[in-house]
Amino acid sequence: MKEKILVSIIAGSDSDLETANEAVKILKFFSIPHSINIASAHRSAKHLENCISNAVENGAQIFIAAAGMSAALPGAIAAQTILPVIGVPIAGQSLAGLDCLLSISQMPKGVPVATMSIGKAGAVNAAVLAVQILALSDAALREKLAAYKKSAADEVISKDLKIQIDKTGIADG
Amino acid sequence: MKEKILVSIIAGSDSDLETANEAVKILKFFSIPHSINIASAHRSAKHLENCISNAVENGAQIFIAAAGMSAALPGAIAAQTILPVIGVPIAGQSLAGLDCLLSISQMPKGVPVATMSIGKAGAVNAAVLAVQILALSDAALREKLAAYKKSAADEVISKDLKIQIDKTGIADG
Amino acid sequence: MKEKILVSIIAGSDSDLETANEAVKILKFFSIPHSINIASAHRSAKHLENCISNAVENGAQIFIAAAGMSAALPGAIAAQTILPVIGVPIAGQSLAGLDCLLSISQMPKGVPVATMSIGKAGAVNAAVLAVQILALSDAALREKLAAYKKSAADEVISKDLKIQIDKTGIADG
Amino acid sequence: MKEKILVSIIAGSDSDLETANEAVKILKFFSIPHSINIASAHRSAKHLENCISNAVENGAQIFIAAAGMSAALPGAIAAQTILPVIGVPIAGQSLAGLDCLLSISQMPKGVPVATMSIGKAGAVNAAVLAVQILALSDAALREKLAAYKKSAADEVISKDLKIQIDKTGIADG
Amino acid sequence: MKEKILVSIIAGSDSDLETANEAVKILKFFSIPHSINIASAHRSAKHLENCISNAVENGAQIFIAAAGMSAALPGAIAAQTILPVIGVPIAGQSLAGLDCLLSISQMPKGVPVATMSIGKAGAVNAAVLAVQILALSDAALREKLAAYKKSAADEVISKDLKIQIDKTGIADG
Amino acid sequence: MKEKILVSIIAGSDSDLETANEAVKILKFFSIPHSINIASAHRSAKHLENCISNAVENGAQIFIAAAGMSAALPGAIAAQTILPVIGVPIAGQSLAGLDCLLSISQMPKGVPVATMSIGKAGAVNAAVLAVQILALSDAALREKLAAYKKSAADEVISKDLKIQIDKTGIADG
Amino acid sequence: MKEKILVSIIAGSDSDLETANEAVKILKFFSIPHSINIASAHRSAKHLENCISNAVENGAQIFIAAAGMSAALPGAIAAQTILPVIGVPIAGQSLAGLDCLLSISQMPKGVPVATMSIGKAGAVNAAVLAVQILALSDAALREKLAAYKKSAADEVISKDLKIQIDKTGIADG
Amino acid sequence: MKEKILVSIIAGSDSDLETANEAVKILKFFSIPHSINIASAHRSAKHLENCISNAVENGAQIFIAAAGMSAALPGAIAAQTILPVIGVPIAGQSLAGLDCLLSISQMPKGVPVATMSIGKAGAVNAAVLAVQILALSDAALREKLAAYKKSAADEVISKDLKIQIDKTGIADG
Repeated sequence: MKEKILVSIIAGSDSDLETANEAVKILKFFSIPHSINIASAHRSAKHLENCISNAVENGAQIFIAAAGMSAALPGAIAAQTILPVIGVPIAGQSLAGLDCLLSISQMPKGVPVATMSIGKAGAVNAAVLAVQILALSDAALREKLAAYKKSAADEVISKDLKIQIDKTGIADG
Repeated sequence: MKEKILVSIIAGSDSDLETANEAVKILKFFSIPHSINIASAHRSAKHLENCISNAVENGAQIFIAAAGMSAALPGAIAAQTILPVIGVPIAGQSLAGLDCLLSISQMPKGVPVATMSIGKAGAVNAAVLAVQILALSDAALREKLAAYKKSAADEVISKDLKIQIDKTGIADG
Repeated sequence: MKEKILVSIIAGSDSDLETANEAVKILKFFSIPHSINIASAHRSAKHLENCISNAVENGAQIFIAAAGMSAALPGAIAAQTILPVIGVPIAGQSLAGLDCLLSISQMPKGVPVATMSIGKAGAVNAAVLAVQILALSDAALREKLAAYKKSAADEVISKDLKIQIDKTGIADG
Repeated sequence: MKEKILVSIIAGSDSDLETANEAVKILKFFSIPHSINIASAHRSAKHLENCISNAVENGAQIFIAAAGMSAALPGAIAAQTILPVIGVPIAGQSLAGLDCLLSISQMPKGVPVATMSIGKAGAVNAAVLAVQILALSDAALREKLAAYKKSAADEVISKDLKIQIDKTGIADG
Repeated sequence: MKEKILVSIIAGSDSDLETANEAVKILKFFSIPHSINIASAHRSAKHLENCISNAVENGAQIFIAAAGMSAALPGAIAAQTILPVIGVPIAGQSLAGLDCLLSISQMPKGVPVATMSIGKAGAVNAAVLAVQILALSDAALREKLAAYKKSAADEVISKDLKIQIDKTGIADG
Repeated sequence: MKEKILVSIIAGSDSDLETANEAVKILKFFSIPHSINIASAHRSAKHLENCISNAVENGAQIFIAAAGMSAALPGAIAAQTILPVIGVPIAGQSLAGLDCLLSISQMPKGVPVATMSIGKAGAVNAAVLAVQILALSDAALREKLAAYKKSAADEVISKDLKIQIDKTGIADG
Repeated sequence: MKEKILVSIIAGSDSDLETANEAVKILKFFSIPHSINIASAHRSAKHLENCISNAVENGAQIFIAAAGMSAALPGAIAAQTILPVIGVPIAGQSLAGLDCLLSISQMPKGVPVATMSIGKAGAVNAAVLAVQILALSDAALREKLAAYKKSAADEVISKDLKIQIDKTGIADG
Repeated sequence: MKEKILVSIIAGSDSDLETANEAVKILKFFSIPHSINIASAHRSAKHLENCISNAVENGAQIFIAAAGMSAALPGAIAAQTILPVIGVPIAGQSLAGLDCLLSISQMPKGVPVATMSIGKAGAVNAAVLAVQILALSDAALREKLAAYKKSAADEVISKDLKIQIDKTGIADG
């Protein structure tokens, strides 16, 4: 854990890893050095503190925390740092993710958590937001981000084009 | 704070005090020594730790935590102790208390929070549950608790009697 | 049913047994003598009364009640005893458990039910809370509970360690 | 309480009386002999049993139960009788009545509660449903009920007529 | 459709039949003559009117209406009759049945629908409530209903007994 | 009611008139001939049918229906016509309008109701949508609608300008 | 895309196409010339603008937009046109479609979106509403629409007939 | 609007200004140059584009968008920029803010909006998050932020101290 990082991802349990890995993929795509940890605000508060201080020592600028149910993790990190904290709600078996969405977003005055959408889309977006923040002071990253945004738009356009062609093909057939 | 206590009540902010005081009244009625603190899991994590360890040093057997919004307080206490923790959701201006009810109750395996109803009824009940727990090893308290339960039933019965009389009065009039 | 018990678990129907058994496993782990019954507040009110009085006669200190839908069971027990009652909401086919969570938690003043999270996590936590309560007057149990809490934290830490090693392995590979 | 009744209304607490009285007014309008009691399923279970058996002895054919929060009252009555039970959810300070609506309606197989709308409209409707049931074996009541239904329709029509006239008046003026 | 009936069951669409059939089974068990129809308040309003008047002509005393989504069916029947109408919400693919539960229960003053729980339990209960109503003027039915209620209680008790034996067996084995 | 109209507005009760009048104002602004009626799907089904056929005879092209609670009105109109029906949910005292929003929007296949936002904004929008539909075959109305849209945008811009000036004023002061 | 169209269907992503195709089927049944595009308000705002202006140039009178999650698509189209916009909420993996239903329906004053039911029923209804609007100025389409409505009613009636025959068959068998 | 800014605050309407001003106060406290605009995604899409490009030209690094109801504003900004966008849900008269919370947070992959809590706490937090982001490249701001965090903790501690003293005072009195 001595390598230099910019983003620290923390998952509330190993069952949250699959979702959290969506953030990892985006950070890798943008070549952002990062770490990933499992730490529970409720079951391993001391280990969480260690993860946070390790991350800070290693240079972390931003935290991404993914958790389900009462989802105290993002807020617990925000309580201990002035770095931006991004929270990803993970829908479990009951309540469709409404529980963790509310727990993560309804933070009191002075302690923000940047809440993302529920599940994998939210994990992707947490990483994209982290890149947007880092890009504020990194022109190369800004360019890459603009290209990523353009490619997402192009993907929509090419999917649209494909159904226009398919439709014509069907019409002709 | 050097006095001996059995129950430690912690409110997440001063705006939660009015609700938390409903628990105080019940504990006073049962002559249970207790302390009350304001401590925020998100804004004053270190102070919260101090409140918890002070309470434990002073003999606290049970924690009651009242909080609104993302309401991490009860879970944050439960993360740091093996004593029973009772949580009281406090409805704020939006979402009608659904946010804090879910945040407080949806705890992960191994870290229970005994969740009460939203608002003042919940604060009363937190204190009653604390008394029920303490009464397990205190026969005098058990008797007082049984009397309290009986008096609550009697109050219902006397209110019922009153409307029977009123009705008759009206019928006679 | 003449054996001495400390905790009485009551499931609202046989379909709730699988969830309730999560509580049984925890109580067995802590060697807490307990009974388990099926009794419905709505379909077998008299039988429920018998279960409650039997449990009390056999020494029960705490009730754990697991139920779904309108979930009156925990409250019905709380109406008849001054012992602590712990309620476990069980999500059924519709409404994602919101119905029983609200029914169990929204108790009126004076009749608390210690509400747990929905489903198996809640059943585990009900048993852990029961152990926390019993441990208040049992130093050996307190030690065992502290060890359990530590082992839960250690499990998180070792899972975290494992992904650090895996990551390194992948990086090396 | 020795007078003959057909409908027994039970309110969960005195704060529910105002709502329950809407049912009383309707029953008076239809000259249905009835009783009204305050009895809590959670705070005065024994008194509730007495109210139920008194009502049955006095000839009650139908129960109307109005309650808020976890609202176990209608179900608790349904557990003890094979008479029809009508439940009225009463919205309290939090959760907008969703809690009691779910608690009252989500009854398990075999123990129905006829759930009405939340609040005063629900109390009115509980009484109307009771009258509809009683009218099945009372031709005079059927006529009165048909007249009541017609008058409700007429009231809508006359309100409609009024705004047509007002509009014309304005147009003329 | 010229046979004499007491209960008219109407399903909003053929996809609602499976649920509605749970009511049929109960009515058959109690030997209550009944009819079952498919009729949509929204798609076949005229046919629905025919079903209602046919049912009334054939002697129907009670309507049971099962519907999903916006679920106007029970209310549309209640609008056209002074007979008791029982509504069964059927959960579809989205919103977990909350939509139809609210549509069916939140009726305006003067037009009650006796709302049951969501899905098959609700269909069973609709039939049981219908039997409860019919039993008010049928002593034999009252006895059968009391026996049904007792047998439901006995079933719980025998399931409870079974787990006591199993437990002992396991203990002995 | 013999005058020629293009839009028929129907309110479920007189308490819904205040909201429905927001639609009236917009229709007057666009000089769209219209009628307004009070008719309840549940309390005055026959009167509702009359209102619908009168409106159709008078030339109505579009229906706007405003209703609260179970809000069957818009769907009941849609059941009886192939004209477009626009529904306005009206929030009552409980459930914050969620009940009528779901009742109005969750229509079955083949019977659409164009659902608007809850309350007065929804009533305004119902009228604007009606104008948009009528404008499809009325070039003058299209121009007026474009001007209305532009003026709404201009209003935002002028409010924005005002706060820029105020800010400067404050800065200067 | 140079062909003449009357309805422009826009899906927020390719995963929304399956639902959107339900609208296509209805439009084909009614021989309404239409186009279908994929365009995201959030990922391809410029492409969306192109789709809208192309559609308008090609004669589009009505837009149908299907989208999930925060579902800004229908509103983004409504922001840019005075043509009627119909929105179809598509339920995703979490929150059961409540998110997009609220996002689509809760539009501010002056910018209506005609919101349909969630999922495929909503897509069907969007197309039916579009046909209803177009039929206002097309007598042949009105006839076809009336026939469609009648056939939907007939389908219900024939399904009802079938279960009457089945029942008799079983009774006879 | 030619002055240099770092944060651009955009409110969806003038009724959102009171909430948005809570963000202004925080930014002033931290001496962060900022602009505030009123611009609606739905009513003034072109003006919104102008506000965004002006803000970018003037140096904006971060957007804060406050909106209610369907709340498309934050997402509409995120669609047009690679700068971080922070969204503040504003609870209106119905649905308690659940509508805008879901609309703002449930963004699709690739287009994050950092969602805050509902209402004024959310506006404060939006500004604090903006400061946290700007502080990543501004050591003086980091210090000020740490002091702000410490002062928030101190305020909790001093409030706690005050109730300890008050309690003693009462005890003495």
